[in-house]
Amino acid sequence: MSRGDHDADRRRLLRAGAIAGVGAGIGAGAGVLGAGAVRTREDALGRTAAGSAADAEAAPTALIGEETIPFHGTHQAGIATPAPAHAVFLGLDLRPETDRDAVLRMLRVLTDDAARLTAGTAPLADTEPELAAAPARLTVTVGFGPGLLQRAGREAPAWLAPLPAFAIDALRPELGDGDLMLQVGAEDPLALAHAARMLLKGLRGAATVRWRQQGFRRAHGTVRPGTTMRNLFGQVDGTANPQPGTPAFDRAVWIPEGPFAGGTSLVLRRIRMDVDTWDELDRTGREEAMGRRLADGAPLTGGGEHDAPDFAARTENGFPVIAEFSHVRRARGVDAADGGQVIFRRAYNYDVAPDPGGAEISESGLIFASYQADPRAQFLPIQERLAELDLLNQWTTPIGSAVFAIPPGAAEGEMLGQSVLE
Amino acid sequence: MSRGDHDADRRRLLRAGAIAGVGAGIGAGAGVLGAGAVRTREDALGRTAAGSAADAEAAPTALIGEETIPFHGTHQAGIATPAPAHAVFLGLDLRPETDRDAVLRMLRVLTDDAARLTAGTAPLADTEPELAAAPARLTVTVGFGPGLLQRAGREAPAWLAPLPAFAIDALRPELGDGDLMLQVGAEDPLALAHAARMLLKGLRGAATVRWRQQGFRRAHGTVRPGTTMRNLFGQVDGTANPQPGTPAFDRAVWIPEGPFAGGTSLVLRRIRMDVDTWDELDRTGREEAMGRRLADGAPLTGGGEHDAPDFAARTENGFPVIAEFSHVRRARGVDAADGGQVIFRRAYNYDVAPDPGGAEISESGLIFASYQADPRAQFLPIQERLAELDLLNQWTTPIGSAVFAIPPGAAEGEMLGQSVLE
Ligand code: HEM
Ligand code: HEM
Repeated sequence: MSRGDHDADRRRLLRAGAIAGVGAGIGAGAGVLGAGAVRTREDALGRTAAGSAADAEAAPTALIGEETIPFHGTHQAGIATPAPAHAVFLGLDLRPETDRDAVLRMLRVLTDDAARLTAGTAPLADTEPELAAAPARLTVTVGFGPGLLQRAGREAPAWLAPLPAFAIDALRPELGDGDLMLQVGAEDPLALAHAARMLLKGLRGAATVRWRQQGFRRAHGTVRPGTTMRNLFGQVDGTANPQPGTPAFDRAVWIPEGPFAGGTSLVLRRIRMDVDTWDELDRTGREEAMGRRLADGAPLTGGGEHDAPDFAARTENGFPVIAEFSHVRRARGVDAADGGQVIFRRAYNYDVAPDPGGAEISESGLIFASYQADPRAQFLPIQERLAELDLLNQWTTPIGSAVFAIPPGAAEGEMLGQSVLE
Repeated sequence: MSRGDHDADRRRLLRAGAIAGVGAGIGAGAGVLGAGAVRTREDALGRTAAGSAADAEAAPTALIGEETIPFHGTHQAGIATPAPAHAVFLGLDLRPETDRDAVLRMLRVLTDDAARLTAGTAPLADTEPELAAAPARLTVTVGFGPGLLQRAGREAPAWLAPLPAFAIDALRPELGDGDLMLQVGAEDPLALAHAARMLLKGLRGAATVRWRQQGFRRAHGTVRPGTTMRNLFGQVDGTANPQPGTPAFDRAVWIPEGPFAGGTSLVLRRIRMDVDTWDELDRTGREEAMGRRLADGAPLTGGGEHDAPDFAARTENGFPVIAEFSHVRRARGVDAADGGQVIFRRAYNYDVAPDPGGAEISESGLIFASYQADPRAQFLPIQERLAELDLLNQWTTPIGSAVFAIPPGAAEGEMLGQSVLE
């Protein structure tokens, strides 16, 4: 792929991102997305496709199953692209015998499988090709742990290491770390399950599954396009986030130079939310803990969801309207205005069967996925502040933690991680 | 509610069912459903609703989140109504101290919570009412195990007992049986998670969770309305099924008389599908094991998905085209034509993290849900035949099993199970 193609791709992705950003929360309809971001595809099973991307925008009845998100490009898909309803995060350990050559072979297969699956084409070894035919905006995002870079004989970025321990943590090793990470997302759970299995099948000679975390947001078409998602505390979650396609997003997320240029970092925290004790708090208490209203996510100082919180505002009694201990005040910090500590949160809800025999009726939380160019400069100070003081900590517990380096996107014919490993 | 209202309800449900039956597989669009089956509702948060049900049919952009399936009626919802993308099956044990009065109190709360949640209205004790606002065709279906009837001092139907053991079984007690069953379904995973939690919260004083099984079909809008679902072997699954709203369906599913009249029975089998060894079989072998084509689900004797298999057809070498050991031949049996052994299958796929440390990359299968008026006369002979011979057994293993009596639907003001327990 020539440099010119690259640039054209980049422009297309940016344009798509700019539009997609509007719906970066959840439920973004086909009509919201730029033609460059989502393409309607020809049907591998020989049925008539719903039409071109242009048609899809005109006709909102186009099937979501037939829409694709381009795999190739400057950046990997699954970060700036709208978060679909379903995602599975997979952490893998390399097998002891997997050497540098085996790592490269593995990544070539992975790149090829991901490119095919996201286009709605069955990988070569796919024995259920019909399950690949409706990708439903499938994306595959690949990240490297320090172990993979070491095995491939390459130096890891200084920030690519487990986060320091925080007093709030109750980490379970079986829910964190790993040499390789796959984030697979789709609007359809069947497409997702099949893609995840096909990718793992291609990898199993070189790596074993260490953990698997499945999450969800609202199903496509459940709420209006552009609606910010809600988490299982009922909160509007994702409001104060840089918008894909804006310079602020690019600055916050993409690594500007070096082998990972065009890539980013992922901090993945599995955070248990104690819905039972949260329920015991009254509505005012829940809103004060956050600093935002539950009904619409607006700051407690008024306005709409996207209006700026007034951190200086005081009640008649002289107390800050947005409390000192509130999550949004603590999370925003001091440097947010100048872009220093900005992260891109792209979280998923989880809700799984609680431990058998326990008193709980649900085990829920957030798969908190944060993307940023430099986790030490951007994520860490926020997390340190929150660990120090944040009323929300009373109902939340980090139980899994991992950091991954996300290589840039691959051009056609390239292998994911080529700029890093070659 | 008067008898006349009941009949009107029944007619509306039947009409709805007749239309809904077309899309009983998956992905049924709003346009496919009768106005009686799915209603667009007013928005609890004060936003403008997308329109009336009639509008919804005209405008396919109506939000799926705002659609509701009527809770009250002759039959419980969640059986003849189109199967949504997500379902969770919950098995509960009554607490030792839960006596007859406590059972009735529990069912009154459950009925009230289910009626509210399915209408998109938050239950009284709901602390996250915003999560209830977009029910996305939520249904709640309640079933009784023998233990509940005993506790309430009522005789159980003779068939309400664990199935006999089959040689193919590898049942885990923690995945079967129970005193009370909830099947909660919705097109949206967030609506589902919230509803399940609210229902369990209302029950927790009287019962504890014994098991929880979460399943999926294709997301709404992934494939064309009326497309039959596919399971994780890639097979078209659900073709030869009685169609809701037809006399054949009513005869097969609804109990005609006695306290459970208008109700049915649920046989729930959790069946592990060994996708790894299935993959090793070639495509011809996979099609022969089933007797149908993988591409489109048509019988191996030709035609389309819904054409009748020709069980008498033979190959040039004199072998049956649809093998003696094939699943469809064994499952159909002899009496199917006269309606003797007809069951209504409404299965969900499951795909969960495999046991840690194992060699598997996925643990998948079917939550096989079968509804029929009399499990001994309808389900049992089929299962016995399949246990005796069915090539598919080589790749499938029942690991959970339960039978529940499903009481009829409740009229407004009635409690679920009233005709059975009062
Ligand atoms: C289960 C745990 C958490 C929950 C339920 C939660 C929820 C929320 C909610 C509801 C908001 C306000 C709406 C929005 O702007 O998105 C918010 C904002 C934010 N959260 Fe969290 N959060 C959690 C953990 C974290 C963690 C671990 C971090 C980073 C270390 C973080 C960083 C932020 C930031 C940076 C904002 C935006 C603050 C602003 O500039 O207004 N959150 N969170
Ligand atoms: C994981 C286990 C199973 C799988 C993967 C499976 C799959 C299928 C498939 C693909 C079909 C053909 C398409 C259709 O008509 O739906 C079918 C038909 C059928 N299956 Fe199963 N099945 C399983 C277990 C069972 C069980 C446990 C029963 C009942 C005891 C059963 C009863 C039937 C019946 C009655 C038919 C329709 C036969 C006809 O009249 O053509 N299946 N199954």
